[in-house]
Amino acid sequence: MEYYSSHINQLIQQLSSLPGIGAKSAQRLAFHIINMPKDQVNQLTSVITQAREKVQYCKCCCTLTDQEICPICANPRRDHSTIMVVENTRDLAAYEKTGRFEGVYHVLHGAISPMLGIGPDDIRLKELMKRLQGDVKEVIIATNSSLEGETTAMYISKLIKPTGIRVSRIASGVPVGGDLEYIDEVTLLRALEGRVEL
Amino acid sequence: MEYYSSHINQLIQQLSSLPGIGAKSAQRLAFHIINMPKDQVNQLTSVITQAREKVQYCKCCCTLTDQEICPICANPRRDHSTIMVVENTRDLAAYEKTGRFEGVYHVLHGAISPMLGIGPDDIRLKELMKRLQGDVKEVIIATNSSLEGETTAMYISKLIKPTGIRVSRIASGVPVGGDLEYIDEVTLLRALEGRVEL
Repeated sequence: MEYYSSHINQLIQQLSSLPGIGAKSAQRLAFHIINMPKDQVNQLTSVITQAREKVQYCKCCCTLTDQEICPICANPRRDHSTIMVVENTRDLAAYEKTGRFEGVYHVLHGAISPMLGIGPDDIRLKELMKRLQGDVKEVIIATNSSLEGETTAMYISKLIKPTGIRVSRIASGVPVGGDLEYIDEVTLLRALEGRVEL
Repeated sequence: MEYYSSHINQLIQQLSSLPGIGAKSAQRLAFHIINMPKDQVNQLTSVITQAREKVQYCKCCCTLTDQEICPICANPRRDHSTIMVVENTRDLAAYEKTGRFEGVYHVLHGAISPMLGIGPDDIRLKELMKRLQGDVKEVIIATNSSLEGETTAMYISKLIKPTGIRVSRIASGVPVGGDLEYIDEVTLLRALEGRVEL
């Protein structure tokens, strides 16, 4: 791209290597950044650096946090005997936003995927098993409803069942407000299988 | 957003203040950055800082470049008597990509917009007028085909005409490959007015 100077090109290239940012967005962002006041640019870069350096895994639930133990694990009013297993911190946040789950979490940072060569040792499963030695009554598996998520759920449930701890899986079915006409067959069948008596 | 730690929240906030990046993309980007190797993060931030610090306006055509005079203005093989006026550096790049324009450019960095309070003095128009004192044969106005772009084109043409230099405007009409059915009426009328004899 001869028509941009090398610094602009490098910035466009760096930005377009980020997920969800295509060539056009990268150009737009690059020129936006070049036109930003210098102190705002400094703030942006320092926040990036800080986040990368300070954020670590919670020693208990493995979520991303800037403390040794995350605020949820450190909260004595949460029910520490109920653990919800999620694939990543964004999924944790999705459930936290509901404001209705009072237990704690465990973040796997991935899901088992033979296709991508991700095995049980590549996700934070050992850390979960260690936690089960404490006073845990129920493990709710809230991995995604994808092939990988389901595989991971099955694997974990088989691993935990022998310990006698209750294992459950979040319900799969028609989303609230969903129009049956536009929902895929697998989901429709799941919803049928999972029907509840009224 | 209590469910994310403060460093993560700050990063999400910074990223979502960039153009075209919504709340969801900002979250996705933030976690991507936190999971990136440290040296890649350092590279990203230093490229941002460098671009912001090194990139300046070309002393001749006002495009963004990291030299005093941009490579296009410095190129003796370009036709310096033909100046194409564009709104910004991305528009310049769009024409450069065609590889068929052999003249030079002038970048206005904006367009006249009474609505937004942007007047002729807020864009790089004085710099253009100064260049016309040299050996210039034609000024091709390639501002956008928007209200602001058209206003700017009219304004510039009225300003230049008294000097006797030829002023032209890029053609407006149906885009190549465009289906008439889906093109707005104004464009269709423009295409009709601008019809060329075969």
